[in-house]
Amino acid sequence: MIYFDNSATTKPYKEVLNSFLTVSSEYFGNPSSLHGFGGQAEKLLSQAREQTAKLIGVKTNELYFTSGGTESNNLAIKGAALGNRNRGRHLITSSVEHPSVLTVMEQLEQEGFEITRLPVDKDGRVSADDVKSSIRKDTILVSIMKVNNEVGTIQPIKEIGDMLKSYPSVIFHVDAVQGIGKVPINIYESRIDLLSISAHKIHGLKGTGALFIREGVRIAPLFLGGNQERKIRSGTENVAGAVAMAKALRMTLDKSAEAMESMVKLKNLLRDKLNEMEQIQINTPIENSAPHILNFSLKGIKSEVFIHALEQKNIFVSTTSACSSKKKAPSNTLLQMGVPEDLAESAIRISLSFDNTEEEARKAILAIEETVKHLGRVMNK
Amino acid sequence: MIYFDNSATTKPYKEVLNSFLTVSSEYFGNPSSLHGFGGQAEKLLSQAREQTAKLIGVKTNELYFTSGGTESNNLAIKGAALGNRNRGRHLITSSVEHPSVLTVMEQLEQEGFEITRLPVDKDGRVSADDVKSSIRKDTILVSIMKVNNEVGTIQPIKEIGDMLKSYPSVIFHVDAVQGIGKVPINIYESRIDLLSISAHKIHGLKGTGALFIREGVRIAPLFLGGNQERKIRSGTENVAGAVAMAKALRMTLDKSAEAMESMVKLKNLLRDKLNEMEQIQINTPIENSAPHILNFSLKGIKSEVFIHALEQKNIFVSTTSACSSKKKAPSNTLLQMGVPEDLAESAIRISLSFDNTEEEARKAILAIEETVKHLGRVMNK
Ligand SMILES: Cc1ncc(COP(=O)(O)O)c(C=O)c1O
Ligand SMILES: Cc1ncc(COP(=O)(O)O)c(C=O)c1O
Repeated sequence: MIYFDNSATTKPYKEVLNSFLTVSSEYFGNPSSLHGFGGQAEKLLSQAREQTAKLIGVKTNELYFTSGGTESNNLAIKGAALGNRNRGRHLITSSVEHPSVLTVMEQLEQEGFEITRLPVDKDGRVSADDVKSSIRKDTILVSIMKVNNEVGTIQPIKEIGDMLKSYPSVIFHVDAVQGIGKVPINIYESRIDLLSISAHKIHGLKGTGALFIREGVRIAPLFLGGNQERKIRSGTENVAGAVAMAKALRMTLDKSAEAMESMVKLKNLLRDKLNEMEQIQINTPIENSAPHILNFSLKGIKSEVFIHALEQKNIFVSTTSACSSKKKAPSNTLLQMGVPEDLAESAIRISLSFDNTEEEARKAILAIEETVKHLGRVMNK
Repeated sequence: MIYFDNSATTKPYKEVLNSFLTVSSEYFGNPSSLHGFGGQAEKLLSQAREQTAKLIGVKTNELYFTSGGTESNNLAIKGAALGNRNRGRHLITSSVEHPSVLTVMEQLEQEGFEITRLPVDKDGRVSADDVKSSIRKDTILVSIMKVNNEVGTIQPIKEIGDMLKSYPSVIFHVDAVQGIGKVPINIYESRIDLLSISAHKIHGLKGTGALFIREGVRIAPLFLGGNQERKIRSGTENVAGAVAMAKALRMTLDKSAEAMESMVKLKNLLRDKLNEMEQIQINTPIENSAPHILNFSLKGIKSEVFIHALEQKNIFVSTTSACSSKKKAPSNTLLQMGVPEDLAESAIRISLSFDNTEEEARKAILAIEETVKHLGRVMNK
């Protein structure tokens, strides 16, 4: 199997599964229990928090475990909006965010918040100037993603953060779910207040994620109950999942250091070869794009048809994002970039992991060539 | 180790961990992906849903996976309140619910809902008549737990449900986190609309749970995003966790059928022997109490002191519920039952699993006797 759908989800590392197993079977106590067996679980949880925080460069008490990227985004945005509504009701985001940001914004709009959705350029990029000129007296939150999940565009987070230094009361949220381990980010230097990560995108486990909340930033919790996670996220803690996430993050960052160059090479190889095919238009920009995502359109062939054809050759790619793929609506990001609807409807996303090889890329290129030819013939009959 | 803290959390069954492992490593696709590898994950998720639904006696499309009991309770109560606020703003609950119910109610109160918190009798029981007489024209929700987590009292769910048959517009939520596998419940016959379960209380994994939502009941989602779980709970699905939960539930129900009698025997043995000690007062009622929980107070000895003393003998019990144990506040349930504060402050909860043995119970009884004597001597010096 050639698995090129790593932005949808990744294969958990064996070591990650082993950690999960050990903690689940041997340290299954409840970290909130008073006795020492619960204490052992609490210690593992603290260590996982410390490790995760250190790996993303923040303080231990700024790291909160969640059930994934979607929860982190919901908690960050609803939590910031509801926790700060006495200060204002204006929120700024981009028009190419993940649904777990965009639909939360829609809901908040219905509840009386005002939302500015910034446009993007032909490369899918937001401009920091646009963010700046949208800021009002009553703006409480700016939410912009680090790396777009459909085309891989990297947003100018540092620039936006620098600009926001002049607006200390505006909370800055970054959805870094696709960025972590692929594109470096300095959370403090970029003046980020809230940052979402998801473990299953970095070879960790589904159902685990984290939210960085800068010290002093006010967030209303989504879950109330036993006051776990310093009252921000009640619910018996998934200790084994947190330990597994810390391990996945460490391994991903290690691999990133070792294998980034070869990932970039793979992506360039794919880009160059696909570019040579006249039926193909590459949608991912050359500049400011993440090393693992390559989005392209196949003129005249609907995405689903192509995906299933490649699947016959044991190659797995996706249309746009996994969660919108079944809606069969064309990629929102591509439409926002100005890609014509027919091309957006034939978009394919290849997304790499550090374990993909050049051999896999070459096989995929051949398979894509053959499939394009074959489908082309079928279409022209 | 004698682990008598199974209401705080349980040891995952080996088979549950094996299922988790297999699914995580071999079927790691994203169930929302269009290709067949995602399709395999989706199929496993559907099967887990079907199995879980069948085991609790509901339809497959009425079962929603969550990250645990706390999320299920928050989703049920906030979801019902916010999804039906156009019909009314009055909610009824008991004064002995879990914090994930009680604090959600407090929050809703601050947002303009009116809450009736019903008292309990000396056994910790709500009366169905009290529920009935609190119902108003604008009542939209009744939330009562199946089994109390601190003393094990079984609430008259069937009676309340029968009474609620005359009030078709009132939504009935049951927190069954401590009841599942221990006390039979017929969801449809008890006219239940929403029911919360948590996997880590039945030898499944932390971070997984489910909510039953009866067809036609309106619930506003807490997480928005990719529209997973039929739009009720967005976020990439924890497929392996769901499969593991289905397995844990099946095994627990199987064990329940086999080992219920011996669990009841163990509890009675503990009750009888502890009752013989004059320093001990049993708080768990004889009638209408779950087979796995026994709560008692040790006159004159603070719970923490006793817990740590027992821990020296490798026996693990708890004060009240795990999540409130670190607050060092006396058990809310006991206070509501009219237990005097000093006795509530020296309450101990033993909670059993189907794997606990008579030998363990006898060892624990001896250890408790010794500890009571020893601490008594220390106190009287
Ligand atoms: C950019 C982005 N944000 C958020 C999410 C949601 O994360 P999760 O799948 O953990 O719910 C995803 C992935 O689906 C994503 O790609
Ligand atoms: C009665 C009851 N409801 C809800 C919960 C919360 O479930 P979870 O631990 O899965 O968040 C618990 C356990 O803590 C409980 O005992």
